[in-house]
Amino acid sequence: MVLERIQSPEDIKALSTEQLETLAQEIRTFLVEKISHTGGHLASNLGVVELTIALYLAFDLPKDKVVWDVGHQSYVHKILSGRRDLFCELRQYGGLSGFPKRKESPYDSFDTGHSSTSISAGLGLAQGRDLLGEDYSVVSIIGDGALTGGMAYEALNNAARMKRNFIIVLNDNNMSISENVGGMSSYLNGLRTGDGYNDLKKNVVGALERIPGGQQMINRIKRTKNGIKQLFIPGMLFENMGITYLGPVDGHDIRKVQRALLEAKRLDHAVLVHVLTKKGKGYAPAERNPSKFHGVDPFDIATGKPLQKKEHPSYTDVFSRALCRLAQKDEKIVAVTAAMPDGTGLKAFAKEFPDRFFDVGIAEAHAVTSAAGMAAAGLKPVVAVYSSFLQRGYDQILHDVCIQELPVLFAVDRAGLVGSDGETHQGIFDYSYLTCIPNMTVMAPKNRWELEDMLAFGLKLGRPAAIRYPRGEAYRGLKEYRQPIEYGKGELLIDHSGKGAKIALLAVGSMVSTAEHICEKLEKRGILCSLANGRFVKPFDRELADYLAGTHSLVVTLEENVLQGGFGRAVASYIYEGHPGTKVYQVGLPDTYVEHGNVSVLRESLGIDSDSIIKKMGEKGFF
Amino acid sequence: MVLERIQSPEDIKALSTEQLETLAQEIRTFLVEKISHTGGHLASNLGVVELTIALYLAFDLPKDKVVWDVGHQSYVHKILSGRRDLFCELRQYGGLSGFPKRKESPYDSFDTGHSSTSISAGLGLAQGRDLLGEDYSVVSIIGDGALTGGMAYEALNNAARMKRNFIIVLNDNNMSISENVGGMSSYLNGLRTGDGYNDLKKNVVGALERIPGGQQMINRIKRTKNGIKQLFIPGMLFENMGITYLGPVDGHDIRKVQRALLEAKRLDHAVLVHVLTKKGKGYAPAERNPSKFHGVDPFDIATGKPLQKKEHPSYTDVFSRALCRLAQKDEKIVAVTAAMPDGTGLKAFAKEFPDRFFDVGIAEAHAVTSAAGMAAAGLKPVVAVYSSFLQRGYDQILHDVCIQELPVLFAVDRAGLVGSDGETHQGIFDYSYLTCIPNMTVMAPKNRWELEDMLAFGLKLGRPAAIRYPRGEAYRGLKEYRQPIEYGKGELLIDHSGKGAKIALLAVGSMVSTAEHICEKLEKRGILCSLANGRFVKPFDRELADYLAGTHSLVVTLEENVLQGGFGRAVASYIYEGHPGTKVYQVGLPDTYVEHGNVSVLRESLGIDSDSIIKKMGEKGFF
Repeated sequence: MVLERIQSPEDIKALSTEQLETLAQEIRTFLVEKISHTGGHLASNLGVVELTIALYLAFDLPKDKVVWDVGHQSYVHKILSGRRDLFCELRQYGGLSGFPKRKESPYDSFDTGHSSTSISAGLGLAQGRDLLGEDYSVVSIIGDGALTGGMAYEALNNAARMKRNFIIVLNDNNMSISENVGGMSSYLNGLRTGDGYNDLKKNVVGALERIPGGQQMINRIKRTKNGIKQLFIPGMLFENMGITYLGPVDGHDIRKVQRALLEAKRLDHAVLVHVLTKKGKGYAPAERNPSKFHGVDPFDIATGKPLQKKEHPSYTDVFSRALCRLAQKDEKIVAVTAAMPDGTGLKAFAKEFPDRFFDVGIAEAHAVTSAAGMAAAGLKPVVAVYSSFLQRGYDQILHDVCIQELPVLFAVDRAGLVGSDGETHQGIFDYSYLTCIPNMTVMAPKNRWELEDMLAFGLKLGRPAAIRYPRGEAYRGLKEYRQPIEYGKGELLIDHSGKGAKIALLAVGSMVSTAEHICEKLEKRGILCSLANGRFVKPFDRELADYLAGTHSLVVTLEENVLQGGFGRAVASYIYEGHPGTKVYQVGLPDTYVEHGNVSVLRESLGIDSDSIIKKMGEKGFF
Repeated sequence: MVLERIQSPEDIKALSTEQLETLAQEIRTFLVEKISHTGGHLASNLGVVELTIALYLAFDLPKDKVVWDVGHQSYVHKILSGRRDLFCELRQYGGLSGFPKRKESPYDSFDTGHSSTSISAGLGLAQGRDLLGEDYSVVSIIGDGALTGGMAYEALNNAARMKRNFIIVLNDNNMSISENVGGMSSYLNGLRTGDGYNDLKKNVVGALERIPGGQQMINRIKRTKNGIKQLFIPGMLFENMGITYLGPVDGHDIRKVQRALLEAKRLDHAVLVHVLTKKGKGYAPAERNPSKFHGVDPFDIATGKPLQKKEHPSYTDVFSRALCRLAQKDEKIVAVTAAMPDGTGLKAFAKEFPDRFFDVGIAEAHAVTSAAGMAAAGLKPVVAVYSSFLQRGYDQILHDVCIQELPVLFAVDRAGLVGSDGETHQGIFDYSYLTCIPNMTVMAPKNRWELEDMLAFGLKLGRPAAIRYPRGEAYRGLKEYRQPIEYGKGELLIDHSGKGAKIALLAVGSMVSTAEHICEKLEKRGILCSLANGRFVKPFDRELADYLAGTHSLVVTLEENVLQGGFGRAVASYIYEGHPGTKVYQVGLPDTYVEHGNVSVLRESLGIDSDSIIKKMGEKGFF
């Protein structure tokens, strides 16, 4: 095998073109085989095999710096930079990360995870290089989907001012995670297909050449800075921005990509190399359905089918169905997603109500403010977004939605620990960054039915609100408790104060089931606890807090969010003020980022599973 | 006077061209006269007088909706929509806002304040209009400076998909608040000047017309979707994005602008009207120095000089000088601003170290991540930004700086209450949104010398950190206390525990001087208090908190930030856990937005001035 002979980046440079092509095939086989066991990002990595090999041929890594936008397509790079043997533990606790990590390898020059950061980061690296008088290449690899993010444009706008080499590779597969949207996408499509451009250019040039003075005219056109230079150059949108455009290049032809990169390297300013790739390339099920094979669970290689069948609906599924039901009865309900129609469950809504569905691209800031505009026009927009990506729309929530108290409902998915995507994707800050915003209401459901009820409630509220729920299977316990949602009110599920219970558990969201398990386990040990569901993180239920604090000597708050700025801090502060005799113990996440790993392993390692909490409570002498 | 006859938008439509020109002059005189008394945004409003009049001519307000990007250029619109008499109280507490406010007038269709939101908001309004089957025009007015913000591009990318009319007016004055930067700016400059474009186009077309088959070729070019249509159309960057481009139009010719707007109104998709205006137009001092007359204090009309001379340096001045001094000794120090070289005090740095200064345009997201890139390359970047604008870079701080623990120092200016800009600009959330981020350090200086020390300390720290300081004059009290900064340590300024003091004040940032005044005032009443300066909001000084809580029966925390997620909550939670006998009283801002007004009036109205705090403490029975 060629692959086994690659121990360092130098080895690859000695290979013949034929050997390189064999290498590409071996890498594809390796990827499919490994990811079929561990799960992970498949389609995007299959698409960049040749591109990555070409990068290793054209540049000297790790001296030269490559920044992978989003970073889930860095597997091939990890294979080629000495991490092949770690793929057995890909995305597992303590194992190889699915994203570039500077602490993992000197070949990873910048950590990524969220979209559209690579040009900014690469430009910063290049500016640092130049000021420090160093000599290396910086290459930012960005997908066409990521180009819909405003940050990428801010960076292009600044890249235009570079006076030394800086290379942007546009990895154009005509997709975000789902299909691409917007004006930029149509534009790239025009470049991709040529749009009759080449023939026409030839004709015009030919015609001018045949007339007196025509050649001077052609020369003058070539020298023109703006305006009509595009007669001779595709990619004029980038040229207009001040960035040299090279391409398009077939991204599955290693030598062609290598040549384009070497050409790009020679320029003394910013250059964009447009590379055309196919997501899922070389593995038929992924080629057919790249969106499904974007991020996969373990699957059967022959059929492409997942090994484990999903038995019960996820919170996303519950949201998806409930929203469609509500939208059938109220035509003012519209839905907005930032390039995540599948992930957020809005695909069903899009199919049923295509006119009322807005996929804005990877553009959270615009998603939030355009939703605010729709609300101002009289609609009831639901913005469905992952917790960690909503950070991208922070100012827009605070400045465009909440000041005007516009009725935008945020469906905050993947909130809490998300598992194998790791640090960049954990949704563990939203209670903190949302509850400090005036006029904002924050809810979290204890189970699937409560999510449905909160959704209906949030849409009737007429004010900004967020419902946050975790990744994965929706909790189906506590079904018997389904009291109507009342603004700012929690619910007392089990009141054992009359039976002498000293401890009351006050939990929100995913931690209600954890608290339920704590109650059950402690009851078996003869310790009775009361159990309350906060429902509202903001405004939290002061009356409930007063009741619990007045009837118990210890209130334990539980949340799947960092403690700083979260639910427990606010409740504790309130209880201590009014009930000096009552103790409050806050369970939540510590002040650290949380790496990748199985969610239950992570919960245990962070001490927020029921057994760890019970153990800690015992150590603290609470029983 | 023509101006006095304008009572409703209909009145303006009856005027002759000559009367309209008189009206424009009268509005300019009115603006200069009023703003010379109240202060406010002058140059940008002088630039849009004719544009605003043309909008009122071409559209039916308030049925048609106009969204003003940033909004500080909405004065003329306010004058024409019946708010002329309120200009005496412009930007004063309870008076007219300097920004569009839906609660102020039905003519204000969307609140603005931060840059680059108008296309998103307008697009949302237009989408709402279409879904609800209503019939009105939506016009978003955006400056060329605001086009450097990524959100504007996200919105343009989506506007391209509109299937009904949506109008974007590009108010191009070739400036942000300061000069414009980047590729987009160069591009617009090309459009503005023509760049030899028109002649050349004429020649090429003429040449083609003269040859056999040439006319067909011209027709074919005209039909081409991409690529070389730009031979005939300027503004191809916008056309490439899928947006029809009209212009450029002289923005000081009312009838020409009116005609362009009427033409734009006829299209069934998104259209951009490029209007050229001059900031400060018609008032010589503002034309000469539009940047200085962007936002002004009361001034003398004849000379343009401010009525009150600044006696003492602001925190911004102190930062400005201290950073230059430090940068002289360490060439790794670089500075980044998002279009605010004047406001943040970086102008001096830019002059002294032009190669080490980066003005990225109104692009906070890129500012933060490119700084992270520079830090990864070995530099020591200082990102100077206003507190409320840093919200734009929230995800980038959390995701690009702090996960990798990159040594980026944030100089968070205009933190706390900022005064007359009001709700959108108050910097009262940064403690909350920054302290919940792992690996982040947050400091706040008590006076000018401490800002200098913290800056030096932050640059040596080698980790992400933020220093937040308020708008206005730097505090010159407490000069005698200048102990070296130690990581995570506060300082005990006055310890009266030995003399039987029961109350300890633990304040951060601007509230240290307030606490000092409380001490002095209470001492006069025979009540001794101890006084401590927290210095670090994160990590706060646990040892100091333990000491204060152990030696006093009441600890009062003081901060100029919302309470939720702030300093006091964290300290209270800690003290209550370890010192059950000690009470904590948290002084800070309530869970509301804070409107415009003089800072001292606002502090009083919010109860965070020394007298209000003393009164409240008395009512609570603390003494």
